[in-house]
Amino acid sequence: MSEDDTPEIYKAALLIIGNEILSGRTHDSNTPWIAERLTEHGIMLCEVRIIPDSAEAIIETINALRGKFDYVFATGGIGPTHDDITAESVARAFNAPLEQNEEAFRMLEDHYGIEELTPPRAKMSMIPCGARLIPNPVTAAPGFIIENVHVMAGVPRIMQAMLDYVLQTIKAGKPILSNTVTCALQESILAQDLEALQVRYPEIQLGSYPHYRGGVLGLSLVLRGTRATELEAATAELIGLIRKYGEEPRALSLRTATGT
Amino acid sequence: MSEDDTPEIYKAALLIIGNEILSGRTHDSNTPWIAERLTEHGIMLCEVRIIPDSAEAIIETINALRGKFDYVFATGGIGPTHDDITAESVARAFNAPLEQNEEAFRMLEDHYGIEELTPPRAKMSMIPCGARLIPNPVTAAPGFIIENVHVMAGVPRIMQAMLDYVLQTIKAGKPILSNTVTCALQESILAQDLEALQVRYPEIQLGSYPHYRGGVLGLSLVLRGTRATELEAATAELIGLIRKYGEEPRALSLRTATGT
Repeated sequence: MSEDDTPEIYKAALLIIGNEILSGRTHDSNTPWIAERLTEHGIMLCEVRIIPDSAEAIIETINALRGKFDYVFATGGIGPTHDDITAESVARAFNAPLEQNEEAFRMLEDHYGIEELTPPRAKMSMIPCGARLIPNPVTAAPGFIIENVHVMAGVPRIMQAMLDYVLQTIKAGKPILSNTVTCALQESILAQDLEALQVRYPEIQLGSYPHYRGGVLGLSLVLRGTRATELEAATAELIGLIRKYGEEPRALSLRTATGT
Repeated sequence: MSEDDTPEIYKAALLIIGNEILSGRTHDSNTPWIAERLTEHGIMLCEVRIIPDSAEAIIETINALRGKFDYVFATGGIGPTHDDITAESVARAFNAPLEQNEEAFRMLEDHYGIEELTPPRAKMSMIPCGARLIPNPVTAAPGFIIENVHVMAGVPRIMQAMLDYVLQTIKAGKPILSNTVTCALQESILAQDLEALQVRYPEIQLGSYPHYRGGVLGLSLVLRGTRATELEAATAELIGLIRKYGEEPRALSLRTATGT
């Protein structure tokens, strides 16, 4: 594909399957990891849904998201126990039979040995018909790709290896670049100027995030876009705005996202 | 309400509004906090959605969730800047006019003083008609409640204060109790026994979560339910199962959720 044919960005949704996130027991560390890796690949994460280990919820959500976004990434529920129902639910969402995948079976056989390949372990080779496998270098049980839906493990270490593999197999957009400017101004002081800046740069996503650090209110201003020249121009204007109010940006982190 | 009239549990969804979570810039710490607080109040968090600062996305999602769950909790986008569009979007979702709320205006006036109540700050008193306010003890700008939708700030410290207030105003279900048993067995060894245990205790939610700690694979088994006797019986059976495989549960945390 020539550079001119590369779409600006692709749009993606992330589906996190697991009661343990909804109960508050497990803190979700996968979302920021996945968001950052996608950003590097010109894929914008546009929606995240966290749902329980429920066939009805998985089927409904997979079907809602796969029609709406270029890519869907799903994590969780591909293990050997009774609450691991992702593969069979995704098969039902696609009206595809769930079948023993010979390649997946061999992967599990290589990992466990045929004598230790008990029925619960063999269950992890049941994959929707027509899906391609995502290798699992840690515990062998593979993820899979069916059309634009990429099903991965929920355990972060395994998910990360699977995502690395997936990102090599799918089309990337233009990397999304970002600059962050922080200052001690209250955001209401800058609000009207920020709105005018946003109007002048409609292609730049301009966000304003107040935060407490050590009990002191501060402000982070984040500019995101795919065009470096435009991003730098908008950032320079923003720095000028802050100085207009007699403030010097306290920490100036002109970070260009990885990949460029 | 007598104890017998208390529903077992209420069901809730959480809507997190903010580009900064989807970009990976801000790690979401609100979900586990809210999940735990709701659990204590007999409210089960059944779905989380993270969406961008987009009016279309907010309207569509609010309307999808408010019809499906007893309670909807939303966070983010109620500040003074151009990207704070939650109040106007929720108003549109309810076909309610967005109007200056006199009580909210007074709260802001008390906090900033009338001379410092600039138009961006005054914007934070624009609330959907018919909504009740949620006080903000930190920065004054209130959240609001309209029907079963509770709109709060995204900044954790402010959200937590708002949630405390909200939980005093809404009906609670029976607290959800949980026990966690950890062991060194691989989950595939236990899988068939766990499934049989789940069948014997259909009212208990039984989850199996493998994890790596210090490079060693372990297993956490979590039992959740509203009936203490049933929960203790299922937990005792689970401990027996683990011992059957010659393992002593390595860490046994019989935690009964707060509120009981």
